[in-house]
Amino acid sequence: MKILAINVGSTSLKFRLFEMPAEIVLASGRIERVGDALSPVSWTVGESPHRREERSCPDQQAAIALALNILTQSADPVLSSVSDLACVAFKAVHAEGIADTVFFDDGVLAAMAEYIPLAPMHNPPYMEAVRVFGNLAPNVPLIGVFEPAFHRTIPDHARTYAIPWRWSEKYRIRRYGFHGASHRYVASRVPQLLGRADDRLRIISCHLGGSSSVCALEAGESRDTSMGFSTQSGLPHATRSGDLDPFVPLYLMQKEQLDPEQLGHILASEGGLSGISGMGGDVRDLERAAAQGDGRAALALDVFVYEIQKYVGAYFVALGGLDVLALTGGIGENGVALRARICAGLGCLGVDIDSERNEAVGSEGVISTPSSPVTVAVIAANEELVIAREAMKLLAGSAMAVSAG
Amino acid sequence: MKILAINVGSTSLKFRLFEMPAEIVLASGRIERVGDALSPVSWTVGESPHRREERSCPDQQAAIALALNILTQSADPVLSSVSDLACVAFKAVHAEGIADTVFFDDGVLAAMAEYIPLAPMHNPPYMEAVRVFGNLAPNVPLIGVFEPAFHRTIPDHARTYAIPWRWSEKYRIRRYGFHGASHRYVASRVPQLLGRADDRLRIISCHLGGSSSVCALEAGESRDTSMGFSTQSGLPHATRSGDLDPFVPLYLMQKEQLDPEQLGHILASEGGLSGISGMGGDVRDLERAAAQGDGRAALALDVFVYEIQKYVGAYFVALGGLDVLALTGGIGENGVALRARICAGLGCLGVDIDSERNEAVGSEGVISTPSSPVTVAVIAANEELVIAREAMKLLAGSAMAVSAG
Repeated sequence: MKILAINVGSTSLKFRLFEMPAEIVLASGRIERVGDALSPVSWTVGESPHRREERSCPDQQAAIALALNILTQSADPVLSSVSDLACVAFKAVHAEGIADTVFFDDGVLAAMAEYIPLAPMHNPPYMEAVRVFGNLAPNVPLIGVFEPAFHRTIPDHARTYAIPWRWSEKYRIRRYGFHGASHRYVASRVPQLLGRADDRLRIISCHLGGSSSVCALEAGESRDTSMGFSTQSGLPHATRSGDLDPFVPLYLMQKEQLDPEQLGHILASEGGLSGISGMGGDVRDLERAAAQGDGRAALALDVFVYEIQKYVGAYFVALGGLDVLALTGGIGENGVALRARICAGLGCLGVDIDSERNEAVGSEGVISTPSSPVTVAVIAANEELVIAREAMKLLAGSAMAVSAG
Repeated sequence: MKILAINVGSTSLKFRLFEMPAEIVLASGRIERVGDALSPVSWTVGESPHRREERSCPDQQAAIALALNILTQSADPVLSSVSDLACVAFKAVHAEGIADTVFFDDGVLAAMAEYIPLAPMHNPPYMEAVRVFGNLAPNVPLIGVFEPAFHRTIPDHARTYAIPWRWSEKYRIRRYGFHGASHRYVASRVPQLLGRADDRLRIISCHLGGSSSVCALEAGESRDTSMGFSTQSGLPHATRSGDLDPFVPLYLMQKEQLDPEQLGHILASEGGLSGISGMGGDVRDLERAAAQGDGRAALALDVFVYEIQKYVGAYFVALGGLDVLALTGGIGENGVALRARICAGLGCLGVDIDSERNEAVGSEGVISTPSSPVTVAVIAANEELVIAREAMKLLAGSAMAVSAG
């Protein structure tokens, strides 16, 4: 069956078409700067060479139409028509009461709308994309693989906030966790890569990118993760604050005369590494500026590294020890210097990386020394594959339910 | 010289009179339930036996007058008159721009007033107590030993929040840290108790009580601590939430139509272990209820233990390893079962406690096995002594400044 995995950003659209269950990538592409005058588009279809062009994509609807057009109208199309898709699967983020993989319907969209305050950058473009696909591919099942689904195995003592219980219950306030597709992929890929079938393998997965999270994995399951109720928590992100003393937002609202929505918007768009550095949150830019003596850029990197190290220490204890430290996401895969800095502070946990391996590894491989008690692995993120797998499971389950009914 | 150390609660007053620099306790006492019809009062003066009575203390002024009366009017008074005091030293909490030991004046009181939103339970009764002492002992210097002073050695990467820089600067928003007197005492007492003069000794100090914090100590200095900008952060406290995803308070304000002050009050008085358990935050009550099958009491304890363990793991990494784990405060000194639970999860860091020692230790001593890589020590909190020492330093410095002027 053919499954189209979709990853929507506020101004971008990534897609990957899989032949499942063989897990063969039939096509993939990416459209960026949706809404600008011209949008860079890059794609690969079947055996055809990789292409890169600029196209007009004034909105998400145009971007989605373009993606479907690429799949069905190329010289060597991989899809005869949209109705050939078994489903479209979305890497969905957050919806009230849904920590699962589900078929989209009005109820799911309403639950996403309810949690817009918690994922203000993510939910609106996803809801729009679901609506557009619903129009363009009316008979194709649309499936949301919600990020918190992977974190349902986090035990109560790690998911409960110390707030009045009535609020925890009424508003379902607890640690949900995000980057579920990425951490789930790490959980399946690490044993495969290392040839370690030990089903009690303890892994700490660091997804480091524009947004970042750390996840404690045991036996392939999430035991704790740094993002909590919203996507604004845990580590500092490129522009999002991460965890705070709860009286910081309350004090700022009083002093700056801001309402919760206004303050939330600023903490989400002007906080994080960008807030500290004052020059944006891209780690490559920060490294260049720090090398040229920019103190605030250096401080932003110092804070980021330190917070990652503290989470690794905390989860080392949560897991009772550590077998594998995995680094993934844009920074995890490409941030050679940052990887070296993070690991340099983890010697006390048995992390010993080989600097030549660290520099030579590419997007996947082991970078620790042979004698390092903890194996350190770089993992090439493959969230789309996880999305396709989870969607396929839901389709299979629903087919069984239908045939049994 | 005679120094009176004062510890003010919202409905309590503790005092201890020292002969300094000999560090001899001349008298000590405690008045509780100030404002009730009758207040339990207990005290010891000089060689006289310990006494316990109930007295009328309708307000803080009456409580302070009673304390001074006990010191000057006992059968064997330790103070001929109030003017015999070299100073009154207060364990003060939080004031804008003051992370130091200072003489109280109108500017300091105004700075405390500014930070009432950050220490709503602490600052008002302290300000009142300072005013009352100013009236009752007009010629005696009043000194505030502010809790964040001890944490000034926390490096920038551990004290900086990932919020817009303009706000960090304008409102001096950063990690301040509290329980400074307690952690400072641990930093001085542990090397003494263990006979270890190693000046790079790495200690993690856990002050566990009605409010709790963890502190990473190296070479006698604070390197990081769990409480941040306000006293509402870090570990869950008896009734205070501790750290939260910043979008939890923002979401609750929107859903419950609360302003920052209202929400802050609820998070400070109905959160923490009390919020989770629904039966208050006293660990002894929670242990009893959990033993009888109360699931939420058990969950509150589970969360508390887990959060402490995570901080210990994080600070293990921050310090690059650990020599001594110190437990202090009401729970640290008396919570035998809780100590055992906390340490049981820290085996992976080299913590191995001796269960017999843990049960027999009393308020101070080593409870780890002789072969434990990390020494675990129970330390009897002595914040008042630290207050007296710091006040004496300020007096000495100011006398030198006067004689040099």
